[in-house]
Amino acid sequence: MSKTNPARGMRDFLPADVRKREYVIGIIKEVYESYGFEPLETPAVENLEILMGKYGEEGNQLIFKILKRGEKLTESLESGILGREQEQGDGPNIPDSKLSDLALRYDLTVPLARVVANNKNDLPKFFKRYQIQPVWRADRPARGRFREFYQCDVDCIGSTSLAVESELIHAVAVTLLRLGFDQYSVRLNDRQLLNAMLERCGVNEENRTSLLVLLDKIDKITIEDFLNSIKQLGLGSAASTFAQFVVDLRSRQIELAEIAVASGKKRIDSVWAMKINTTVLDQVAGFVSGTEGGMQAVAELRKLVALTADLGIGSLVMIDPTLARGLSYYTGTIMEVSVGKGIGSIGGGGRYDGLIGMFGKEQIPACGFSLGLERILVVMEERGMFPPEIAESRPADVMVTVWSEETLADSLKLAKELRQNGLRVTLYPEPDKFGKQMKYADQIKVPWVCVLGESEIAAGTVTLKNMTTGEQQTADITETVNKIKGHL
Amino acid sequence: MSKTNPARGMRDFLPADVRKREYVIGIIKEVYESYGFEPLETPAVENLEILMGKYGEEGNQLIFKILKRGEKLTESLESGILGREQEQGDGPNIPDSKLSDLALRYDLTVPLARVVANNKNDLPKFFKRYQIQPVWRADRPARGRFREFYQCDVDCIGSTSLAVESELIHAVAVTLLRLGFDQYSVRLNDRQLLNAMLERCGVNEENRTSLLVLLDKIDKITIEDFLNSIKQLGLGSAASTFAQFVVDLRSRQIELAEIAVASGKKRIDSVWAMKINTTVLDQVAGFVSGTEGGMQAVAELRKLVALTADLGIGSLVMIDPTLARGLSYYTGTIMEVSVGKGIGSIGGGGRYDGLIGMFGKEQIPACGFSLGLERILVVMEERGMFPPEIAESRPADVMVTVWSEETLADSLKLAKELRQNGLRVTLYPEPDKFGKQMKYADQIKVPWVCVLGESEIAAGTVTLKNMTTGEQQTADITETVNKIKGHL
Repeated sequence: MSKTNPARGMRDFLPADVRKREYVIGIIKEVYESYGFEPLETPAVENLEILMGKYGEEGNQLIFKILKRGEKLTESLESGILGREQEQGDGPNIPDSKLSDLALRYDLTVPLARVVANNKNDLPKFFKRYQIQPVWRADRPARGRFREFYQCDVDCIGSTSLAVESELIHAVAVTLLRLGFDQYSVRLNDRQLLNAMLERCGVNEENRTSLLVLLDKIDKITIEDFLNSIKQLGLGSAASTFAQFVVDLRSRQIELAEIAVASGKKRIDSVWAMKINTTVLDQVAGFVSGTEGGMQAVAELRKLVALTADLGIGSLVMIDPTLARGLSYYTGTIMEVSVGKGIGSIGGGGRYDGLIGMFGKEQIPACGFSLGLERILVVMEERGMFPPEIAESRPADVMVTVWSEETLADSLKLAKELRQNGLRVTLYPEPDKFGKQMKYADQIKVPWVCVLGESEIAAGTVTLKNMTTGEQQTADITETVNKIKGHL
Repeated sequence: MSKTNPARGMRDFLPADVRKREYVIGIIKEVYESYGFEPLETPAVENLEILMGKYGEEGNQLIFKILKRGEKLTESLESGILGREQEQGDGPNIPDSKLSDLALRYDLTVPLARVVANNKNDLPKFFKRYQIQPVWRADRPARGRFREFYQCDVDCIGSTSLAVESELIHAVAVTLLRLGFDQYSVRLNDRQLLNAMLERCGVNEENRTSLLVLLDKIDKITIEDFLNSIKQLGLGSAASTFAQFVVDLRSRQIELAEIAVASGKKRIDSVWAMKINTTVLDQVAGFVSGTEGGMQAVAELRKLVALTADLGIGSLVMIDPTLARGLSYYTGTIMEVSVGKGIGSIGGGGRYDGLIGMFGKEQIPACGFSLGLERILVVMEERGMFPPEIAESRPADVMVTVWSEETLADSLKLAKELRQNGLRVTLYPEPDKFGKQMKYADQIKVPWVCVLGESEIAAGTVTLKNMTTGEQQTADITETVNKIKGHL
């Protein structure tokens, strides 16, 4: 590993990468803005206690912690060492929180909750914000998993209405459409429904979290492995009942989808989607009948299916009572979006009505969605979905040559005038052999070169070379500008 | 201090702040792109050894360091404690570099040098890049000094030609003009000239750095304090000779400027600027004659004055042989830009032909300029320089009301249709009393509200309310859209 590589799990983005990232971010922003969501930015660094305990035990470990500075660090080290000597234990007794007071942002939801609690009087009653910033996790790097990555979050704070979920789903659907995805689906579930199912199966409250963590991985393993893993947890027959119920639900759902395809449809249309979703909801409703949370969740999911169908995106929405989501702070609707089989989810979200209350006195409802920029970029790259001007990543419309030290001022002035005419112009930055200048123009892929030699300067003209065809013409600046603009 | 505040010296940017920041960043990017500079992004986190030793001793202290994780941390703590016990010294003997392996980006220049050394074969011969990202410094927070702040860097790698300096200065001038600054100046000097002046005064090489550090602060203190501080350094008569020479130069420069103003000019024009710059350069040329570096620096500064004058920005450029700049890696031209008296510099830069060689085998010349986003924003805010649409920060063009739970689908659909017509639309996110909905519309400052009650739904119409005049009209969607668009 060269010492000039970026740090482990981190990446440098060269110009062609940045242009692709900015293209995607630009579309996401434009769509979110069109729904009245407003931009928020929070610092990369948060006080450590803001982040600790919000992401589960695994999350605590993956938070990048910043070393205390100066005297504070010295004090901590001294007290830590004393502590150890008193205990006579093995190894140093200095927890991270003694050495660290700050940490890197781990997601965009916890900072949002902090901001809302901190600015309650300055923010409108409903705060609709989007936030597109990097987050950092000290995870083991792997293919497609980085230690610095961007999240594109959109959240609405202050309302419990399903209008929020409907608009979030619609905004994500429009975003994906605008990016050029033609096949994507949003899976929906509700944490209350999961809880009711677990209750009905007789799973104790203390065992539910580990079952949901396992359920979150069901798409990545076989049914056999899933059922075996549940058995290995040793949570008794209740857990196995739950697992079997989940597996039955999934196979019934796949069966319905297959009938739809067998009936001659290439993909599931809105009529079939409604049929499948209704069937699934009827089945779970029967299972959880009598549980208050479960029945309410089913009713809300029915309503969400209807509202999204009214918005014309019914065929994208799929109720999936086995969808679990990893984060612990969700309280209601949970959602996940995928853009094809075998790619995994490119984003997800849900309702978290309890998180903001952890920072302030007041409990404020909230619901949001997060798109993962890196996954979207990987899929778009694989499928060649970038428009040509982004894929080509041209640094400028035209390059101006420099003939000699004496004519440098003329080249600088020509570049300035071309810019004043709205062109993006790069100047070859020193006098050099003509061949070298043309080679460089080729290398950076500028479509045009303005050659400014002594004869052109004397005549007040420019020789314009088309780098694709090799054609040349000598003309004044106005004609040169028009020619270039005519081809952009 | 509330526990929901951002960390010390860090800031949350609410929507109105973000819009202003993005407006400024957008203009900077657009101008830099028009010069053929390309975007680069590097990770927030760098390996600690990349940053250490690049910013002087003070810089080393101000770098935010990230705590090692897991076993590596345990190992370091154990070896550190053992080390201490062996030495029997006071306090723990664990340097930062034992506890930390990573650090937060401190500027954008060192990461650029690393990227250039790391991607030599993939980058063009001349790499022209801009980079607009935050940096972090564990400085004591003060008015206008933050621990997280944005730098807007633009650099050209690979050429020693003054074409680079000329274009950088021109690009910065155009940027400031586009942002609406009507009075700004770029001060120029050369590190070689400073060295020659120090040599001529007989200052030993080991004393030069501390003198330059003091010189960098000359604008913030009185002449008396400056001369006294130099004396207190105890560097002997050579240092005082240098100090007196610098003070004489400055007073001569101020005198010339005063003559220009006395002659009836409101500000210095290009003729007077040329006169002043030539006089100053003649004077220092006499002083450093015989030193190779000094004479070369004077010749280059003369040429740069001529090239910028040819570009039509001669009146902005001011040779200042007392300009020092803080960073140690500069080797040639140094530059600093200010937008008025008493504001201090809003950016600066220079040539650093030795930095990239610290990371690779090859010495590659480089020159760049960095604008400080925070300073620019403060001045623009004070002077009211933001265009109205940015200053107002409207979250949407129009708000759609929600009459009842039953009509929610109709409101969702109306919002969708308005968006399809190119409007930015926010939906009031739940059924609520009409008065509350209007109050909210007022609070978030949307200019229009579409009221969708039962009668409108029945008639297939919308009631549009102008929030400024209070006027209302009921019409179909097309007419409603046209009315709103006519007023945007």
